[in-house]
Amino acid sequence: MPALNRQIVLASRPDGYPIESNFELVENPIPDPAEGEILVRTIYLSVDPYMRGRMNASQKSYAPPVGNREVITGGVVGEIVKSKHDQFQVGDIAQCQLGWQAYGTVAGETARKIDLDQAPISTSLGILGMPGLTAYFGLLDVCEPQAGETVFISGAAGAVGSLVGQIAKIKGCRAVGSAGTDQKVEHVVSDLGFDAAYNYKATSDYVAKIAELCSEGVDVYFDNVGGKQTDSVFPNFNIGARISICGQISQYNRKQPELGPRLFFNFITKRLRMRGFLVFDFVDRHPQALAEMTKWLNTGKLQYRETITNGLENAPTAFISMLKGGNLGKQLVKVSDEI
Amino acid sequence: MPALNRQIVLASRPDGYPIESNFELVENPIPDPAEGEILVRTIYLSVDPYMRGRMNASQKSYAPPVGNREVITGGVVGEIVKSKHDQFQVGDIAQCQLGWQAYGTVAGETARKIDLDQAPISTSLGILGMPGLTAYFGLLDVCEPQAGETVFISGAAGAVGSLVGQIAKIKGCRAVGSAGTDQKVEHVVSDLGFDAAYNYKATSDYVAKIAELCSEGVDVYFDNVGGKQTDSVFPNFNIGARISICGQISQYNRKQPELGPRLFFNFITKRLRMRGFLVFDFVDRHPQALAEMTKWLNTGKLQYRETITNGLENAPTAFISMLKGGNLGKQLVKVSDEI
Repeated sequence: MPALNRQIVLASRPDGYPIESNFELVENPIPDPAEGEILVRTIYLSVDPYMRGRMNASQKSYAPPVGNREVITGGVVGEIVKSKHDQFQVGDIAQCQLGWQAYGTVAGETARKIDLDQAPISTSLGILGMPGLTAYFGLLDVCEPQAGETVFISGAAGAVGSLVGQIAKIKGCRAVGSAGTDQKVEHVVSDLGFDAAYNYKATSDYVAKIAELCSEGVDVYFDNVGGKQTDSVFPNFNIGARISICGQISQYNRKQPELGPRLFFNFITKRLRMRGFLVFDFVDRHPQALAEMTKWLNTGKLQYRETITNGLENAPTAFISMLKGGNLGKQLVKVSDEI
Repeated sequence: MPALNRQIVLASRPDGYPIESNFELVENPIPDPAEGEILVRTIYLSVDPYMRGRMNASQKSYAPPVGNREVITGGVVGEIVKSKHDQFQVGDIAQCQLGWQAYGTVAGETARKIDLDQAPISTSLGILGMPGLTAYFGLLDVCEPQAGETVFISGAAGAVGSLVGQIAKIKGCRAVGSAGTDQKVEHVVSDLGFDAAYNYKATSDYVAKIAELCSEGVDVYFDNVGGKQTDSVFPNFNIGARISICGQISQYNRKQPELGPRLFFNFITKRLRMRGFLVFDFVDRHPQALAEMTKWLNTGKLQYRETITNGLENAPTAFISMLKGGNLGKQLVKVSDEI
């Protein structure tokens, strides 16, 4: 172990898109685990859109904000280097909510031991972690897609959206999505098996494009993005369509709230159902879902991609890039070597 | 029977709020019923907000528009004066979708025979008709209110809203509403048993007012109105709140669509569920619901009010007044005498 820990703390609150100076790399002593805790060496750190909400002073998100000069919230997978919890041994690999730091302690009961035989450990932050569970429950439980229905996904090439489309295909649905580059569009169709997708940055009339790609209308909408992309699905909904609100990334970095068309009358004419959710709402069923996702992964039914940035010091850059769509699949930061 | 029928037809399509000249009273022969039909003499005509959507040329509503110079759509209760349907006798009272006219024929299977021993026949257009069923299913099925929860109702003094609050009270909830006059506010609290209400036309800060009246937050929102009133409920929602979209009367008469704040991120942070519905979605259970509503009415658990305008020729005036909140409870037009 090094003499000192390295941590990324919140130096100032972002106003709009975060900038590098909102973050600061600091050094502090590596803590010792208290009774029931484990000390973890971070291997991969996950950067996710939800973290943006935690950087606001006001409570606009579902968890308390990160305080001034506090370590940024975040999930990691790493190696246990000290253990005062009887379920964990030194050398075990665990996934836990450690934050943006090279070392840290957490209560053992909040950590999940990773089976090295199942899949690469980075998947515990992606397809076999929070994003995978989000896709699973947000599509299957919130929207109850039926075979033959059309599922539309905004943010289709992201960590969650890329899995939603593939799960929709497993369930016999048509999967159609939107993404922000031609490369992403090509990827979700050619590599992931989406039936169609479009580049929203190269399209002016989203309503017409969705109508073209979803010729039988949209039965299920999995929304990662919000804003104009979401508005444009409404004219394409079939009667009885279901909407899962997973993220609204188009809105998180606005300095002023954006106005939009009032959409609620559509709920009457088309008898729509909409539900927002958090992956934690389904915590009792996480093990069952992970088992099914692992099976789909290991039988080739699910593909995934990772965008990996090297070095804890580059976590802010990776985070900002992800918020602007720079990632394909899961955005990770590699903080130290696996062994 | 008179020599000629009287009908109100659509003379021109409203642009914004309807005006008298959008309607025209015409005279035509009284039709004879074909096989399987009944000829009905209208006693009461119902004017309802949904009719406004039918007056637009484009299909913005869930049913085809009324054509130029066609009789306006509407439910009536009346006396059968000729019958070619074996379930109906001359002299029976029936509720049916006859439109704005003094006489008309409908297929017998689309009419509902009214039991004169249960309640006044006008209730078949209100508390024991479409508005009553709308309140029943829109609250109980769409929102599943639990005893002790707070139910907020916009348009609380209207035909539907006034019943929603009372059903909420029967189910052990707190009922709080908004209405457009001090008289309506007084009525829903003193006469109907709402726990609280406010006059939105005399209130500047709706968010603060709802927070004051719903000190434990809002668990269920039954929306008849939309617009700013609906926006203002969102900061007051508890986690897991349910939203029933029944009407959006604040939006129906706008010449230009109104923009509003984007609200969908709230669905994530508060895990909200929203659903739009039509009373016809529950048609299989209408008889069961009517039986329960009748029991509540006849045991004094439900109160109702009617605002009655006399004369078919005044139906446009009554309709326009209702769209502007001139009614207390159900707005009816008395077209002819009961006997």
